[in-house]
This record gives sequence, C-alpha cells and structure tokens, in this order.
Amino acid sequence: MDFKKILANDRVKSYLLKARYGIEKESHRVDLSGNLAKTDHPKSITLKDDHPYIQRDFSETQMEFITPVMETLEDLFHYLAAIHDVAYRSMDENEMLWPLSMPPQLPEKEEDIAIAKLENIKKFRYRQTLSQSYGRRKQMVSGIHFNFEFGEELIQALFSLQSEIKDYQQFKAEIYLKVTRNYLHNRWLMTYFYGASPISEKNFFEYHSLNGAVRSIRGSKYGYVNSDEVKVSYSSIQNYLSDLSLMVKRGLLSEEKELYAPIRLRGGHHFSDLEDHGVQYIEVRNIDLNPFETYGISYEQGEFLHLFLLYLLWKDEGHYDEWGEMGDFYNEIVALEHPLAHTQFEREAKTMIDEMEHLVNLLDLPISDTLFVYLREMLMNPSKTLAGRLYIESEKSSQSQVATSIAKQNYKKSWDKPYQLAGFTDMELSTQIFMFDAIQQGIQVEILDRQDQFLKLKLKDHVEYVKNGNMTSKDNYVSTLIMENKTVTKKILHQHGFRVPKGEEFQTIDQALRSYHLFSAKPFVVKPKTTNYGLGISIFKDGANDEDYQRALTLAFKEDSSVIIEEFINGTEYRFFVLNDKVYAVLLRIPANVQGDGKHTIEELVMRKNRDPVRGRDHRTPLENIQLGELENLMLKGQGYGIDSIPQEGEIIYLRENSNISTGGDSIDVTDQIPDDYKKIAVDAVSVLGVEICGIDLIIENTEVPADHENAYGIIEANFNPSMYMHIYPYKGKSRRLTMHIIHYLFPELLQSQESKSVKRVPVVKSGSQR
Amino acid sequence: MDFKKILANDRVKSYLLKARYGIEKESHRVDLSGNLAKTDHPKSITLKDDHPYIQRDFSETQMEFITPVMETLEDLFHYLAAIHDVAYRSMDENEMLWPLSMPPQLPEKEEDIAIAKLENIKKFRYRQTLSQSYGRRKQMVSGIHFNFEFGEELIQALFSLQSEIKDYQQFKAEIYLKVTRNYLHNRWLMTYFYGASPISEKNFFEYHSLNGAVRSIRGSKYGYVNSDEVKVSYSSIQNYLSDLSLMVKRGLLSEEKELYAPIRLRGGHHFSDLEDHGVQYIEVRNIDLNPFETYGISYEQGEFLHLFLLYLLWKDEGHYDEWGEMGDFYNEIVALEHPLAHTQFEREAKTMIDEMEHLVNLLDLPISDTLFVYLREMLMNPSKTLAGRLYIESEKSSQSQVATSIAKQNYKKSWDKPYQLAGFTDMELSTQIFMFDAIQQGIQVEILDRQDQFLKLKLKDHVEYVKNGNMTSKDNYVSTLIMENKTVTKKILHQHGFRVPKGEEFQTIDQALRSYHLFSAKPFVVKPKTTNYGLGISIFKDGANDEDYQRALTLAFKEDSSVIIEEFINGTEYRFFVLNDKVYAVLLRIPANVQGDGKHTIEELVMRKNRDPVRGRDHRTPLENIQLGELENLMLKGQGYGIDSIPQEGEIIYLRENSNISTGGDSIDVTDQIPDDYKKIAVDAVSVLGVEICGIDLIIENTEVPADHENAYGIIEANFNPSMYMHIYPYKGKSRRLTMHIIHYLFPELLQSQESKSVKRVPVVKSGSQR
Repeated sequence: MDFKKILANDRVKSYLLKARYGIEKESHRVDLSGNLAKTDHPKSITLKDDHPYIQRDFSETQMEFITPVMETLEDLFHYLAAIHDVAYRSMDENEMLWPLSMPPQLPEKEEDIAIAKLENIKKFRYRQTLSQSYGRRKQMVSGIHFNFEFGEELIQALFSLQSEIKDYQQFKAEIYLKVTRNYLHNRWLMTYFYGASPISEKNFFEYHSLNGAVRSIRGSKYGYVNSDEVKVSYSSIQNYLSDLSLMVKRGLLSEEKELYAPIRLRGGHHFSDLEDHGVQYIEVRNIDLNPFETYGISYEQGEFLHLFLLYLLWKDEGHYDEWGEMGDFYNEIVALEHPLAHTQFEREAKTMIDEMEHLVNLLDLPISDTLFVYLREMLMNPSKTLAGRLYIESEKSSQSQVATSIAKQNYKKSWDKPYQLAGFTDMELSTQIFMFDAIQQGIQVEILDRQDQFLKLKLKDHVEYVKNGNMTSKDNYVSTLIMENKTVTKKILHQHGFRVPKGEEFQTIDQALRSYHLFSAKPFVVKPKTTNYGLGISIFKDGANDEDYQRALTLAFKEDSSVIIEEFINGTEYRFFVLNDKVYAVLLRIPANVQGDGKHTIEELVMRKNRDPVRGRDHRTPLENIQLGELENLMLKGQGYGIDSIPQEGEIIYLRENSNISTGGDSIDVTDQIPDDYKKIAVDAVSVLGVEICGIDLIIENTEVPADHENAYGIIEANFNPSMYMHIYPYKGKSRRLTMHIIHYLFPELLQSQESKSVKRVPVVKSGSQR
Repeated sequence: MDFKKILANDRVKSYLLKARYGIEKESHRVDLSGNLAKTDHPKSITLKDDHPYIQRDFSETQMEFITPVMETLEDLFHYLAAIHDVAYRSMDENEMLWPLSMPPQLPEKEEDIAIAKLENIKKFRYRQTLSQSYGRRKQMVSGIHFNFEFGEELIQALFSLQSEIKDYQQFKAEIYLKVTRNYLHNRWLMTYFYGASPISEKNFFEYHSLNGAVRSIRGSKYGYVNSDEVKVSYSSIQNYLSDLSLMVKRGLLSEEKELYAPIRLRGGHHFSDLEDHGVQYIEVRNIDLNPFETYGISYEQGEFLHLFLLYLLWKDEGHYDEWGEMGDFYNEIVALEHPLAHTQFEREAKTMIDEMEHLVNLLDLPISDTLFVYLREMLMNPSKTLAGRLYIESEKSSQSQVATSIAKQNYKKSWDKPYQLAGFTDMELSTQIFMFDAIQQGIQVEILDRQDQFLKLKLKDHVEYVKNGNMTSKDNYVSTLIMENKTVTKKILHQHGFRVPKGEEFQTIDQALRSYHLFSAKPFVVKPKTTNYGLGISIFKDGANDEDYQRALTLAFKEDSSVIIEEFINGTEYRFFVLNDKVYAVLLRIPANVQGDGKHTIEELVMRKNRDPVRGRDHRTPLENIQLGELENLMLKGQGYGIDSIPQEGEIIYLRENSNISTGGDSIDVTDQIPDDYKKIAVDAVSVLGVEICGIDLIIENTEVPADHENAYGIIEANFNPSMYMHIYPYKGKSRRLTMHIIHYLFPELLQSQESKSVKRVPVVKSGSQR
C-alpha cells in the first residue's frame, strides 16, 4: 500500500489532523515531604472501583487518571487538568501527587507496598499475580498511555483513494498495523526527547542498581517489561491474536492484557473487542511522566505524538519480520544512554525531524515551526531533553527534593483558587463547581456547549442534561416562564395568599403618570419589568414628588418597554435557595462596603479588599471587585466622603445602594439563623409556582416576628437560574454546597449506593475578615 | 353618613374609578330568518349545565353569557366579545343571536316554548315553577345584569376617613344599601336613556296588548315583575334578609333568588352568601339589550353606570321608607312613555346630569366631556335614545326585520375571520384560537399577561398555566433549552443514531475560513447559530468557491456571534407537529409564489393573492402577505422576470428562496400523505430530546423510500414553540385543530367526562384557490 501517495491527495487534506484522543496517567499520592502516602484512596471519590476518571492502578497510593475520549487536543488537556483538580481537592489536605515516573523511596519490605484495596476480587487477584511475576517494586513505576484514533473521515477518504484492499475493516487494520510496526522500530526517538526517568529512588532496585543516570529507566529493560520469551507478530491481526493467545496458553502471560508492549492495538475497552470489532485505535504506552508539566504531559507532546504517528503511517517500513524487534534494540540503547550524552542515533534522528518537517509542508499541516526548532534544540543539546533537565536539576539537590518541590507547586496551584476547575476556568463559576462535584461523584460529564454551559451527565444508563448547573429536567417549562415574568409571578403568589408588593405594570410614561396618586403617598419602587443588575430602579422610601416620579419613569423606560411601579416593602432582603421543597441556603447580601481603620483612605481600603482571591471580575470568582465609578462616588458624596477620605476605625462605609454581589456586595450565609416558619413560606411559595429549583427573595422586617403576622414578609421575586456559587463561597458564614445537592437530586441513586458514606471533602475557602 | 365629604377627600381620589365588574347577558338563538331556533343548545359547548361562560337561561333557545369578574371595563368588554364569538361559532351555522330584549315571535301554544333541557333536575324544576307563576312567555324576555363592586381600596380609604361606623363590614353594607335605595329611586333615568323594548312581537302578550309603543316593556309592569305583594326593606341587611325570608315563607316567592328587583344586594354567587359574608357587590338588573351593540351593551353604558353608581353614593337620599317605592312609581311612568315623547321628568333629569358633571369635576374623575354632551342630546331629543332609535328604524319596515338584519350583521362579523377571537385580536393567532377552544370547552381562562400571551386555565380544581398556547407544564425545562441550542440538539440526536446534517460551529470568520476544505466539495449551508426568519442563511447546493464562502460567512456573522456550517441535505422539508408521542399534523411549506393566468402581471397577481382574508401582517392572520421587496425582486430577476412581467397561464412563479410562512409562503397539510415510518422517526427523535410538544423539521428526499434506508431523511431542527395556526388554517389541505389537542392533553378529564361526545363544531376556513 503506497500511503505516501494517498496521504498527499487533496481530498484528505482537511481530515489529516482530525483524531480522537485519550490519556491514562498514573501518579502516586505522597505526603508533603514526598513520602508515599499511608492513607487509603480518598473516600469522597465515590464509585471507587468504577469511577470513570479516577481509579487506583496497582497500589493503593497509585492513582490513575483517565480522560474520556476527546476530539481535540485542547479538550483532552482541559479534561486532564480538571480530573487532576478534582483528585487534588478530594485527597487529604496534606497529600500531593508525585510528579515522576520513578516512584519515591519505597518501603524496605516489599510487602509493605499496599496493593490497591479494590472491592472487585478479580481485579485484586490480578494485582497479586502481577506482584508475584514482576515484584511489587516494578509495578510502582508510573507513566502515561496515549490513546489515539485517526478520524473516521480520514480513513474513509484514504480507503476511497485506493483499490488494493477491498474490505474497509482490513484497510483500517493495515493502517494501524503499519503505524504500530513503525512505532516499534522508531520509538527510540520518543525515548530520547521525552524519556524522563534517569534515576531511581531508594528501594526501587532490590538487588542491583544502575551504573549512573540514564534517559529512561522505565523505557529500558529495568522498567516493567515482559520476559524475553514474550514475542508477538504485527504482520496481521490474525497473527497478533494467535501469538498472544499462545503466550497465555504457555503461561508466559497470565492474560492478554499483561502484554507490556510500548504500543498496543486496541479494539475497544476490553481485549476481546479487538477480535470482535477489529482495530479501532492504538495505545502508546512508553511515555514517562513529564516532571515539568502539572499534568505529566505537555500539549506540545500531544501535538508531536499526533504528527509522529501520521509520519509513521507515511514513512516507508522495512519489509522484514524483525522490523519491530530491531526497534527494541535501538530503544534499549537510547534509554540507557546518559541523560546528558548525545545519542548514538543523532544522524538518524536529524533525518527523521527533517522528514517530519517535509511532511508538514507537503501535507500543508497547520503545525507551527517552533516544534521543529524545539526538537532540533533538544537533539543538539541533550540537557534540553526531559531526562537532561531533570538530571541537571537533581544534581543541585536530589531528584527527590526536586520532585517534592514540583509536587508542592502543583498542589498549591490546585488549592489556590479552590472554586475553580482547571481546564474550564472560562466557564461560569457555578458550572465549574457543579462539574467538580459531578466528576468527584463519578458521573461522566460531557460538555455539549461550552459557551452555553450545557452539560450531559451520565451515570450508568441514567442521563441528565443540565444548563448553568441548575436548569434541569426536573423543572417544568411553564414554571420557568412564570418566574421570568414578574407580573405573572406576583399575580400567582398573590392569588395563593402570599404577600407581594402591590403594584401595576405600565407600557407608557403617560399611563404611569396618570397613576401618580396610587403610589405617591407611600414608599414605592419604580423598575423596568426585566431588570439587569439593578439598572433603572428607583426607590422612594418616603413617597415621591411629581418631578422625581417622572425622572424615575424615564430611567426605567430606558431599560424596558414595560415598567413596574410597586409598593416598597420595608425590611431586609434574603435569598432563599429552595430545592425539591427544602430550603438549602439563605443568604443575606450587603451592598459593597469597606471598614475603616483610621489610617487608610477609602480608595486604599477598596483596593485592599479587592486583593482577596475570592474577588475578581465577570463572575469567575465568588465575589466581584468593588468598583470606584460614578455611582460609588455619588454614594460617597451623599455621605460627605470622597475616595481620599479616611474613615474611622471600625466605621463601615457603603459604596452602593443596591446589594448585588455583581456590584461588589458581600454575601453572608444566614441559613441557620432564619426561623423555620420563614423557610416554610419560601418552600410553599416556590411550590405554588410549580418549581423545583428556585432562588426566591423575601423581604423580612424582623425575623423574630412570626411569619404569619400581618405584613411580616413580602416576596420580591423568584429566580429560575439562581446563582449558586454565592452560597458555596459566601463572604462570611457557612458554605452550602448546593451543586452537590442538585447532583444528588438529579441522581438519587448516588445516595442510595453510598448509603451513609457522607461527602466529607468538598473544598471550602474561607475569605475576607475570617482568614 | 356624609359620603359627600369623605368622597371628596384627596386620599380616595386614585381609587374612585377602581372597581370590579361582571356582565350576564341573555340572547335567543334564532334561525337566519329571525325565528326562534328549533335546535338544542350547541353540543360543542361542553359542560353544558356548568359551563362558566355560556349557559341556558329559562328556555332551550335562550343563551346566557356570563363574563368572569374583571377589574377594568376594557377587560370586561373584551371578554364579553370573546364569549359571543365562541357562542356564535359553536352554534349551528344557520343560527344567530336575537339582538332585542323582547323575544321574536313566540309559538302560539305556550307549551311549545321549550324549557332549557338541563341535566340538573333541580334547575329544571325551578324553571317549571316559574312557568306556572309567570307563564313561559314572560320568561322569554332577555336583558343584561351588570355586577358592580367598588374597589376594596376605595372602601377601605372611605372607612378610614370616618368614625361613625366602627365595623368595616357594616360600613361596606351601608355603602351598597345607600346606592341601592338611591338606585331604586332614580333608576327611571336609566330607563329613559337606555330602555330599548318599545314593541312586543307576536304571541308575547297572550290576552291583551299595549296601546302603542313605549320606552321599555321589560322595565315596566309588563316585564317580569313579582306580584305587588312582594316588598322588601333596604334599610339594613338584617331587614332585607328577614323580609325576603318572610316572602318565601308566605309562598310569594318560591325561593329568595326569585326576587325580580331592578337591583340586588349580593354576597357572592349564592343567595346565602349575603348572610354569610355580607354585601360584596350589587347586581343592576334593569338593563335592556342595546340592539345597536354587537354584544348588547356599549362601553359608554358601562362608563355611565359606574359614574351613576358613584353619583348615587354621593347624592343625598330622602330619609323616609318609601324612597325606593317612589322610584318604582317614577320608573313605571318613564317606561311607559312613548319612545319619541319627551319625558315628564325632563327637568329632574337635567339636574341629575348637571350634578353628575359637577361630581366629575369635583372629584377630578378622568371621564370625557362627550358623555355629558351625549346624555343631554338624548334628553333634549328622545329620538336619540335607544328606544327612540329602535322605534324609528322599525317604523321603516318592522322591528322584527330590523332585529333580523342587525343579527345578520353580527353573525357575519363573527364568521368573517373565524381564526380570530373578538376582544383579543391583538394577541398571537395561536393563542386566540387556543383561548377560543378553551372557552368552548368550559375552561376558565384568565389572562395573566396579555402582551406575553400568558394564560391561566382552570377546570374545577385543576389549574394549568400556558404561554403562547404551547408552552406548558408538560415539558421539562432543560429539553426546551436543548431545542433552543441547535448544536446541542444535533449532538443529542446524532448520539441516538438519528441523521442530522454534519457540521461545525465557529466563533470567528478566521476559524471558519480555515475549515473551508471540510465543506467546499459538497452541498452545504452557512447559517447563524440562532436564525430569525431565515436571515443570514446561505445555501450552496453545488459546493462553493472561496469568495462565495467568505461572503456567506460575513452575512451569517452579522446575525450571530456563532455560525454553523453544515452539510446540505437534499429533499423536501416537512414540519411534524408532535404532541405526547403522536404526530398530529405534517405540513409542507412552499415559498411565496403566484400562479400566472396569461393576463395579469406578477405585481397584480401578488396583490390579488394578498386580498385573501387569510393573509395579513404580523402573524395575526393564518398566512402573511407576499412582499415585493428587494429579495423578491432579486429572485424574480434571477428567473428573468420583473414585477411587470405577465407569466403564462398555469405557470408558477416563486418570489422567495425560503419557504417560511412569515415571508408569504403557502402551507399545505400533508398529514395523511406522510408514511407512518417517517412519523415514527419524528416521534422517536422528539422523545430522545425529552419533549412533549414539539415542531420538528425533517428533510425527506422521497417519502416513498422507507425511512430506515440510508440517508432517507435528515433532521434539521426541533422547535419548542412551534406555530400551531399554520396547521389549523393551512392554505391547502385539512385543518388540524392542534390547540384543541393540547387542551385535551392538559385536561384529559374533559375527554373522560365527554366520553365519546366528539367535538364537532370547530370553525375551519377554506382559503385561496380552494374557495
């Protein structure tokens, strides 16, 4: 098959870089000193054996991170980051991940290495068998497997451009077989660039040790390899399968999956899929953890791998049986070279880089030149390779110290802004937290539309779609439309006997002006029917004169074609978060403010308050920065202050009239302080609207007065997309993990299966004055 | 109590014209010649005995229209109009409503007047008792009852301005008692202006007849009045109630509700409510049908009544017991005056009009001067009164002919645009039809937000909220959000094995340009992610060159920040309307077109086609006018035509590329022509999205090819707010009453209670070429 010819055809051009990717990555849990953790696998990561993203590999300390299959490298790395974030913040607060392929110092006694405590007895026994065959120490080596599938459209296009092979499945197999054989032959190039296990730590080698550092212990015969007798053919799938089954029959492998080849042909999740469905993808296995990358592998490595595999499909292979075995030989040489030594195959490597670059130009691939600059630099200067860099760093102190310090940086990164989910920080905060919780709970999370915060959640056969973390299948459509329409909401609440501010809706200023007398005598509010962060709202606490009234109407009509004028209800506004007929959180919001210390100006106090990591912009942090714009200046002026004024110690200066979090307000959890009768009002009102998930705003003059007293409360509005993060990361008070409650509401089977295993480790950040 | 003083207080000003109103109106069904109908009450008006809006009064032909309680006169008259429209189009097509209070010619034999065939035996017996006491002929007189309640805020404000009466309920009763006494005393004024039963038709009087015409037979002793012995006191509620119970005890009345007073004190729906709850409102009963008003009473009459009742509260009364009885005496005189005669009480009437005008000025009431101009005109010139006008008209032919001709006009008005619901023609067409059906089915319909098409439906205790006629509690929230997002919809459908156009979403032109090769070779579409009536869409049926591609992208990005490029699926687009897992309608839409006749220009043909009453603007008619704008001219030019071209006979000229109804397209019902396997695809796809009410668009190349053939169909999009009226009033083909199906879906109990009484009389308009 002349792949060179058909790959260069214009018709395949658009599909060359379409592919599907997956990563599996192992890492040991260690304590903050870099010693293997003594704790069990984190309990908060539920569905332990079956967790789709976070499992244990050989030992109890060895976590395995598994990304879902992704269609772009960007998405792959986003997900890999997210899984790491969840793992980090589900682990003991004094634990971190070891960033090297070679394990940290191991126990002296082999049996002190704890095999993963899996519930599935078969899986546990398999690990026992491995211990016996290879020893536990070797199994403690970690690495990365990179699953790769050419885009179906590419294969179809290539298939249509040839006539040699009539059967599509066979054609597909030929593609992967050629890549596999060529990979086996040429993989030493990978080992040179990205090998990163130069030195072992104490107790890894039981009897002997290496003479000095190398490029990759893991990639050499000292890594875990099968016995020399294990040999399989890659000439066809039939031969491959029959050789493998022979190895098992002869007892050289306990089962097929024990084949530790650097690359594997895959038919699906299980080995038997290969026979049933043919080759679907390949699994590249000889990738050492990249110590310098937070998640063990860089995006550029992914890009290189894709190009390398494409190159191997294009590149001629030798037509003799030992093509792959020759590669083992080359690779062993390169793996055991000193990390700072030039490689013996420098000339061949140079040729291959040139060829790859040629291919990029030939096929017009959108791969940046910097990749080749970087590869050539590593080739010319071995100290730039991963092994070289790690070796040089380790020389300054020790590899263990270097690894511990890197681990600490990664640890800090994950805990620094615990409300964020790495990889998805552009999404809305509530959705990030929601995804964190879903991943932690072992729910498969697929992002259907990232801009739109649209998720698909899957737990076994149970699928739920969720938008914005709280728009779900549990709510009915018309109820959300009711909430969207304030007039309708009020009418319905009123009809059911709840107190709502009396008011009227107007479509023209004239209409509203005629009704001046209806409102002028008492406190009232003028507001656009649809309000946006409080724009266009005027509050008249002592009634209004004609002129003020007219001005307020003009302001409101700027924002909407319908304006509501309603009674102003005195008291404090509380947000009740109601889910499935229960109040899960009550929040008090306080307008943007600073507290004086008798020394700093208001401007300085604002800047200091804004420095808190929980404050930021655009709803990507739990609280927003306090602004010092026109409105804030006006508000200060009204109190006789300017931004240069220095308030007295303890004095609280408000910078806004409205209490929205979005304009720098503070959030205070008061769930435990609000009496039950008011919670009942909230629950009943939400139920009358037919809603399951709702943020409902009550004004209460005095929470000590029973709720059934006349005019004890007023309901201002009900929100169908209530903010959740402000309850989860309040400025003061207890965190209420609403995202987790919603997940359990959507997937009640999680609570049943966990029984009473309580969700212990959800990260909470304390902020502001409580720090 | 000095009501003059407290009514003039500034604090009550805003509330003076706040009130609650209700109308009950009787009308006989007659045939197109003006003879009493011989048919039964219409079967399509379900819940016969208990229908909230349309019932039978005394006889089977005598319909009674009952509005709900309304807070403005505008709303009251809107609803009254709607009820009439429903009644008209539920009646036999050859029946209409008699516009006079006096019945048309009655049967010679009294027993040929059919008592209403009510299922409730108690109600039927009551009518039998009435026949015996008064004779059936008298019971055939029709009229209007006007229920009136002062605004609660007005009464509260008045109550707070006095200290004489301590009990609020008692104060309220005093208000209504004073108005009632004064009304009895002064009601002759009403009789003068609005009396409208000057002549009786054949067989109304059995033994004697009147000497010539009068103002109001109905308002005189020849109307139905109780025996002279029936007398009740209006000095207090206690006296009123005890007098009434005495009348019943003495056998003068069969029960309390038989009191035929011109005004009644009401405590609620039942008589006993008065004792239990006190006076809540008053019922003005001496109103003749206004023959010149489609609905039997004019808005101005309503305005007059409100003012008159306010005036009667303000006006001093005589403090002696016969105050009311004196009124009977005056009224009898005025009622029996000749319709063209000046009234005996002209001076008193003038004084009262002056006083009312004074009151308007004193209280600053927003009532226009024209009312007083009009009243004075009627006073000076009796031929301008209702009785006068009717008498003069009747002189030209006969009263019966005048009434028949008026009835025909009203009949025509209701049938002319049968897709509209009178009183609500500003609302969306689907909502108008939906409301029609709901009212016909006896569901209480409350408009929560008119602009927003938001309805509350109530049938006994069962409440449903509906927006736009198809957004209901039956659909879940996230499913509608899925449909709102085309990318997500396609992903989910694709994941479930449905064929959707392959495509990608882009956020920038550059991004999209880079993917040129992915699409350029095959037919494809460039469109904004959110499309509005086809704006910004470019279709490339034979692929596209670089330049066209770039232009299409620029157009699409003008409409949305996200643009979708997808495969173009060849075939015909069909809209499937799916409800509760069943396809109820399939529609084919054809782009705006005209058919040539070899004589007229395209412009003339368009104008002629637009003259069809089913075409109009802004979705208030089943079809939209064909435009002759830039796009249509371009389209013509592309075919070598201009608007002045004369197409050959039978030639079809398309004026648009897109087939939207909103741009003048034609709708053709093909429900019965589409094979079941395609309907199953539609139902299954909708079910995968979790939707109950959905308009889903399938492209089918050839409906004769089975749906399971490869690429037999493609799903373009799913709509959560699908237009319904286009299925109900298609340009060609069968009407599909989707609104009724949705009502039955929301209220399945309707079908259970009707058992197999099929809904026969839903109006269907045939249009266009089929006429």
